[in-house]
Amino acid sequence: MRIERDSIGEKSIPSDAYYGIHALRARENFCVSAALPHRELIWAMAMVKKACTWANTKLGLLSEQKAKAILSACDEVAKGMFDSEVIVPALSGGAGTSINMNINEVIANRAIELLGFEKGRYDIIHPVEDVNMSQSTNDVFPTAVKVAVIKLLKELAHEVALLQGEFQKKEKEYAKILKVGRTEMQDAVPVTAGQEFSAWAEALNRDWWRINKAEERVRQINLGGTAVGTGLNCPKAFISIAIEKLREFTGLPLAKAENLFEATQNTDTFSEVSGFLKTLAADLIKIASDLRFLSSGPRAGIGELILPQVQVGSSIMPGKVNPVIPEMVTQVGIKVIASDIAVSYACSLGNLELNPFVPLIAHELIGSLKLLKETYRIFREKCVAGIFVDIARCKELLDRSCSVITAFSPYLGYETCAEIYKEAVRTGRKVEDLLIEKGYFSKQQIEKITLPEELTTPGFAGIKYLKEELK
Amino acid sequence: MRIERDSIGEKSIPSDAYYGIHALRARENFCVSAALPHRELIWAMAMVKKACTWANTKLGLLSEQKAKAILSACDEVAKGMFDSEVIVPALSGGAGTSINMNINEVIANRAIELLGFEKGRYDIIHPVEDVNMSQSTNDVFPTAVKVAVIKLLKELAHEVALLQGEFQKKEKEYAKILKVGRTEMQDAVPVTAGQEFSAWAEALNRDWWRINKAEERVRQINLGGTAVGTGLNCPKAFISIAIEKLREFTGLPLAKAENLFEATQNTDTFSEVSGFLKTLAADLIKIASDLRFLSSGPRAGIGELILPQVQVGSSIMPGKVNPVIPEMVTQVGIKVIASDIAVSYACSLGNLELNPFVPLIAHELIGSLKLLKETYRIFREKCVAGIFVDIARCKELLDRSCSVITAFSPYLGYETCAEIYKEAVRTGRKVEDLLIEKGYFSKQQIEKITLPEELTTPGFAGIKYLKEELK
Amino acid sequence: MRIERDSIGEKSIPSDAYYGIHALRARENFCVSAALPHRELIWAMAMVKKACTWANTKLGLLSEQKAKAILSACDEVAKGMFDSEVIVPALSGGAGTSINMNINEVIANRAIELLGFEKGRYDIIHPVEDVNMSQSTNDVFPTAVKVAVIKLLKELAHEVALLQGEFQKKEKEYAKILKVGRTEMQDAVPVTAGQEFSAWAEALNRDWWRINKAEERVRQINLGGTAVGTGLNCPKAFISIAIEKLREFTGLPLAKAENLFEATQNTDTFSEVSGFLKTLAADLIKIASDLRFLSSGPRAGIGELILPQVQVGSSIMPGKVNPVIPEMVTQVGIKVIASDIAVSYACSLGNLELNPFVPLIAHELIGSLKLLKETYRIFREKCVAGIFVDIARCKELLDRSCSVITAFSPYLGYETCAEIYKEAVRTGRKVEDLLIEKGYFSKQQIEKITLPEELTTPGFAGIKYLKEELK
Amino acid sequence: MRIERDSIGEKSIPSDAYYGIHALRARENFCVSAALPHRELIWAMAMVKKACTWANTKLGLLSEQKAKAILSACDEVAKGMFDSEVIVPALSGGAGTSINMNINEVIANRAIELLGFEKGRYDIIHPVEDVNMSQSTNDVFPTAVKVAVIKLLKELAHEVALLQGEFQKKEKEYAKILKVGRTEMQDAVPVTAGQEFSAWAEALNRDWWRINKAEERVRQINLGGTAVGTGLNCPKAFISIAIEKLREFTGLPLAKAENLFEATQNTDTFSEVSGFLKTLAADLIKIASDLRFLSSGPRAGIGELILPQVQVGSSIMPGKVNPVIPEMVTQVGIKVIASDIAVSYACSLGNLELNPFVPLIAHELIGSLKLLKETYRIFREKCVAGIFVDIARCKELLDRSCSVITAFSPYLGYETCAEIYKEAVRTGRKVEDLLIEKGYFSKQQIEKITLPEELTTPGFAGIKYLKEELK
Repeated sequence: MRIERDSIGEKSIPSDAYYGIHALRARENFCVSAALPHRELIWAMAMVKKACTWANTKLGLLSEQKAKAILSACDEVAKGMFDSEVIVPALSGGAGTSINMNINEVIANRAIELLGFEKGRYDIIHPVEDVNMSQSTNDVFPTAVKVAVIKLLKELAHEVALLQGEFQKKEKEYAKILKVGRTEMQDAVPVTAGQEFSAWAEALNRDWWRINKAEERVRQINLGGTAVGTGLNCPKAFISIAIEKLREFTGLPLAKAENLFEATQNTDTFSEVSGFLKTLAADLIKIASDLRFLSSGPRAGIGELILPQVQVGSSIMPGKVNPVIPEMVTQVGIKVIASDIAVSYACSLGNLELNPFVPLIAHELIGSLKLLKETYRIFREKCVAGIFVDIARCKELLDRSCSVITAFSPYLGYETCAEIYKEAVRTGRKVEDLLIEKGYFSKQQIEKITLPEELTTPGFAGIKYLKEELK
Repeated sequence: MRIERDSIGEKSIPSDAYYGIHALRARENFCVSAALPHRELIWAMAMVKKACTWANTKLGLLSEQKAKAILSACDEVAKGMFDSEVIVPALSGGAGTSINMNINEVIANRAIELLGFEKGRYDIIHPVEDVNMSQSTNDVFPTAVKVAVIKLLKELAHEVALLQGEFQKKEKEYAKILKVGRTEMQDAVPVTAGQEFSAWAEALNRDWWRINKAEERVRQINLGGTAVGTGLNCPKAFISIAIEKLREFTGLPLAKAENLFEATQNTDTFSEVSGFLKTLAADLIKIASDLRFLSSGPRAGIGELILPQVQVGSSIMPGKVNPVIPEMVTQVGIKVIASDIAVSYACSLGNLELNPFVPLIAHELIGSLKLLKETYRIFREKCVAGIFVDIARCKELLDRSCSVITAFSPYLGYETCAEIYKEAVRTGRKVEDLLIEKGYFSKQQIEKITLPEELTTPGFAGIKYLKEELK
Repeated sequence: MRIERDSIGEKSIPSDAYYGIHALRARENFCVSAALPHRELIWAMAMVKKACTWANTKLGLLSEQKAKAILSACDEVAKGMFDSEVIVPALSGGAGTSINMNINEVIANRAIELLGFEKGRYDIIHPVEDVNMSQSTNDVFPTAVKVAVIKLLKELAHEVALLQGEFQKKEKEYAKILKVGRTEMQDAVPVTAGQEFSAWAEALNRDWWRINKAEERVRQINLGGTAVGTGLNCPKAFISIAIEKLREFTGLPLAKAENLFEATQNTDTFSEVSGFLKTLAADLIKIASDLRFLSSGPRAGIGELILPQVQVGSSIMPGKVNPVIPEMVTQVGIKVIASDIAVSYACSLGNLELNPFVPLIAHELIGSLKLLKETYRIFREKCVAGIFVDIARCKELLDRSCSVITAFSPYLGYETCAEIYKEAVRTGRKVEDLLIEKGYFSKQQIEKITLPEELTTPGFAGIKYLKEELK
Repeated sequence: MRIERDSIGEKSIPSDAYYGIHALRARENFCVSAALPHRELIWAMAMVKKACTWANTKLGLLSEQKAKAILSACDEVAKGMFDSEVIVPALSGGAGTSINMNINEVIANRAIELLGFEKGRYDIIHPVEDVNMSQSTNDVFPTAVKVAVIKLLKELAHEVALLQGEFQKKEKEYAKILKVGRTEMQDAVPVTAGQEFSAWAEALNRDWWRINKAEERVRQINLGGTAVGTGLNCPKAFISIAIEKLREFTGLPLAKAENLFEATQNTDTFSEVSGFLKTLAADLIKIASDLRFLSSGPRAGIGELILPQVQVGSSIMPGKVNPVIPEMVTQVGIKVIASDIAVSYACSLGNLELNPFVPLIAHELIGSLKLLKETYRIFREKCVAGIFVDIARCKELLDRSCSVITAFSPYLGYETCAEIYKEAVRTGRKVEDLLIEKGYFSKQQIEKITLPEELTTPGFAGIKYLKEELK
């Protein structure tokens, strides 16, 4: 045990702990049943500390020796070697101060150790005066959150594109397969299976654009703003050097916010990004719901799609297999939408020069990004890539359905078609047969009108073939 | 035009207006694109004013003559004769002050008129000193909201019970109709159509209990608490008389809150009631979704249920009919769930002795109650009462499905059954035929095992018949 | 009364009604306690009908005479002359079919009337066959919603910019007024009053960008997609003409969606726009909350800001005035955030070729746009434009606060400053006096360090003046 | 490594793993970035398995030897000895099947081991046929969730009561301390500090009732319903024995649902409980917000309350301390409200005989319960217990405020008082002095009117003393 003290008093810290008194107090003050900070946030904090240390050194505020040790410690923390020393609960009060202090302490103690001293020798390297030099939680923490968010946005965009690509493969593969369309769960005019895949792909395409755009808004960071964004106690030269270095270390397109003061208190960009994720989530739920509907069965449902079987479905019903991947996707979607509420709610409760609830905002937003990223991958690998269209079943249901009647509406009028449709539904007979029987069309004419490309593209179906003879 | 003045200045009011300067200012200060206060709230405000006037008169604070005119005016406002004079937008700032003042003004001017004077003669009857005597917005407004809420809760409970009854009729009617069960959209063991109706009925039964219980929490009112709940300027005797009269006039089981101070600032009971409504809404969405799934078709869907046709479905597809009532029900459900967020959010933002956002809380909560009340009625009359089970289709799909295999699991084991199930699904043959062909059971034995009551009640299906012979 | 019939049966319609049987059925099928469609949506529907009629006429599908009457009727409906004939509840089932049919009927009957016939003479002009020609609800309705949304987005952007401008005026006006900063409600380092206004202005600036960007996503319309987006029964030439005309009639930058099929079923752009509005709302709540805090008092609160008095605050407390405009703003913010949930929820529940819940999506989204547009205007006119900073009070509180101590930290170190700070808070003495008394600095030095521009911009305060003498 | 197989194929399992093939597949199929199942849920699952094993044994379906081993294994799992073997992500698809199978496998392998065999020897004890005997995920999993929920509700109720008690202590301690009341952040009539504590205590009192009531609804379990609630393959006698034993093992008041069928598919009780938690959360946010406002300062804020200092507040501002506990409480409140959305959303998406999203529902609901339980404790211990009222500051602000004017309104009228109030606010003079100066009252009379008990209880302040002399 070693003793550490702060202005509140003193506490015993385990000798081998890299964290210090501030982290330990926070551990006791906040809920441990909520999660700990995300790995990505720890990485981002370490990157920020590294950039700041570089700037302080460049300005002659830190000795080369100290700097070297601190920079090495930052790299190790970034890699995840000290994640278990980050003990401050994710939902800490204090606008991120405790997380910042925890990271400062871990870096300081590791740097002290690298210099050959015992942990706790803050006279060698001090968590606040050296590691946090020229910084305040209020600029460092939001900056790190933005760094983590941009990194995850890029990874997420990649996964969204891959899933889109997978749907596009199916779009091509099933471009000619005619099937019944459905609106409001009721039989509607024919479509191709490929078109259905194209609709899912296109929503993902817009989602990809969204998160690419999102990056633009988040890249303005407030590093150098210190306590309230005025920059008090932060040397003017520090700001550009630190940001330049942070850009270099992370490879991310970061920029200095034009107005550091406002960038310290406003959290609207987080709300905005979260709003994009919510839209991605709604798209995922919609697609998953379509897949669950179309693959219902295997015998007493729709059964037009066959999803890969990835696990046994029931502990009691032999042979049952469930659409577990779309179900997981739906749950993730719901969770992301709910997290979005938490983010906007917290953003709305900012007070004057700071939003005290950035820890919650960061935790929910980063959590959603990670969850979505993993979900797109699993959805693609375990489900979409292996989907088959049951072509025979599509044909069977299309034949059963009477919705093709709409294609005859331009020739016979809405009312006549409605009567024929009702008769077909009531008797279970085919619309085509009724049309021939009643003498409206010949079999050859009907074949022209019901060609797949005629039924599924704009215009009056078959008109180009029949214009002459129907005159 | 007449001129009215307040401590801000003066304004011209149309001569025939019953509202006054306070209402007019509020009209200009707040968003008119949001709705106006609900009819039910106006009624409740009038009832509260009437009870307070009665109490003031009893205590000798108001003359008989004034009282008579005010009481008549209250009755007229309660009946809805002056709704168009309530011009303050629903989302007014000021914790309800503007709505209270609007009502005070309308009652005062109508009472003045009844006494034979011109509107605006506040020397005859004063909106604040007479109509609002012994009151503050901060006790009057939350009290009125509670009165409106309890009344609507009672009406809602009635509608919930009626819908439950309708489902129960169907439960009895289709008690013996066997059909395929479905879990996770996949074919599961058989159930009866009646059981499915019973499940919907039972959720409604609990919903009925919920809103009955809800009433208990809302009946504690803070009338007499005045500005901050301490009761300053409200004669002690006033409180019990006013509440007694309010109980009498409304027929509702109101009671004085034990701690008027807390009852003035805490809005948790509204959040709680709204939470109940949210649960009702989730149940509605679930039931509506089941109906939409089961009635999908008419030819290329599930088609086990047939919903009444209440309107033409498409402006382009002849003969198409859609499940528009369940779709409306779903939309109402979503809206109620979203309003619940608004209510709890607003409740959480209370400040010290008052919650300034009670106008929003009231508007959303009363709105949800009205919407739900009407929705249950329409759902029952236009949809549930007219549902038919397509018995032949139920049998067809049950026969197609292979899920009955589970009933043989206790006799043959999970693994053997899984193999037979797969073969049945693959070949399209019936499980029963395969079981006979493979020599596991005789036709007679299978008939015993697959008796509807055996398949849909606890225990090993058919065991009581087969115990002996299978030994 | 006249009799109208559809495939369900017949109904009596009041002779003077412009709506017809479809609207009347819908009126009875859906909740009237929810609102009716927004004016902006009616306008947009009329514009779409006008553009389609133009295209049909151009293609020779409609006679000149019919066309002329229909186009006139469209203009009148657009102007609002028949709003009371739009009787279909906003939350109708059927994915907008009822609203479309209501508009078709009103336009048809008005056109019939213009041609000199009696309403109901659908042999003259038919609601479906003429007014809805080449269209389906499923392309017309989402298109109209987008038209209404873009128009409102433009108007909203204008209002956001005006409010931003008002804050910027105050920013300049109070650029030099030093005051205490506050983080987490606790005294923090000094800022200028101008900086606080700049932070509010800057959030609004980003909000303005957001809604400008939002427009881009919504402008892709699916007109011509008909029932499921395949375009069946819509002449190919119709699409480009109709969209060209719609662009011309509305002055909005509309474009044909690349994939009409997906654009018919996907609603993610609505969810995205709604997400932007949610972020605007969170910013509004934050700003309103700051204003309420800073104007608390008048005597026992913070009192640094003085808001215009727009109405009397209390029916019982003489002289009390409340921050009613920020309170209204907060309520609108909460409502918009809650509506956003409704929108995304509904978007997530789309099914295959259509989302049946577009009426809810449209109603909530358009409602939020209108509410926000009005709110920004009122917030600006009734509140922000009239805000005064109480300069003396700012000085009084800054002097009371001890937060200036941070500026001395680079000279004395964190620990020493913390001790002095505690002594100042405990004794109520000024930090500056203690620093002089303890011999750390001269009065002149302190004056240099505490110059407003030194305290509120990046760097060590006073270092440029004191560098030499402190060596 | 050992090889296990299921109907999908086979997989290698680490030799020392207690989990089996089903858990491993699920691990690969679902998102690991979401959390793992809560400890409380694992405990509950083990309790359910124990009760079922007891019942199966009693009915002669399991040998004594197997039963003994399984029961021991259940106890060990319940205690937490195998938590690291529960590897299925919390948000698994499949309605809980994977979690159930994981628990079955762990119990089976541990029981096999206890009998002296190697893990994987399912011929000795089988995860499905022995451990899951007479059960289905669809009855076991919801039952376990309810068991976990009730247990946590009881613990939560205890914590709520303790916090209430702490507020009540303060209520008594500060019963006589007069201070300014505030409505809408503006100075209002005087209250006592004790009254403010009483309002917080009373909201907690109702919260305590809520969660006690909540227990009633959740105690109806569907054990014995098996796959769809019909009870197929579950011996009739099993149900009552298993439930009786589960009641005994857990000490919780569980009961058999009257309709097992509906209880298997309906999740409304979870939505209801979650709704209660949301109301608790809103109360917490309101209280935390009041504490943050009242303790703002230390010098330039309100400063009427002094919160215990639990950690250093800033890495840059010396001496700053923040209200970190109320901030944490607020964040937890927001998170619980957001989780409530997730729960209701998921409940609304149930399909027919089952809700596939119970894993999400369970995870969010149990998570909220745990988080709240811990939060109440920390809020009490680290914050509320140590709150001091700054009595001098209360007096100072009360004296500054002019709100006492309302007490004179019954004597002087609203208008006169409003004038005096405005003069007092404008000049900074005391209302009392102005009243004397203007000759309205003597100093003695004012003293009577402004007695604390007169100002903070119902009635006209001082009337009982002044009735005679003012005549």
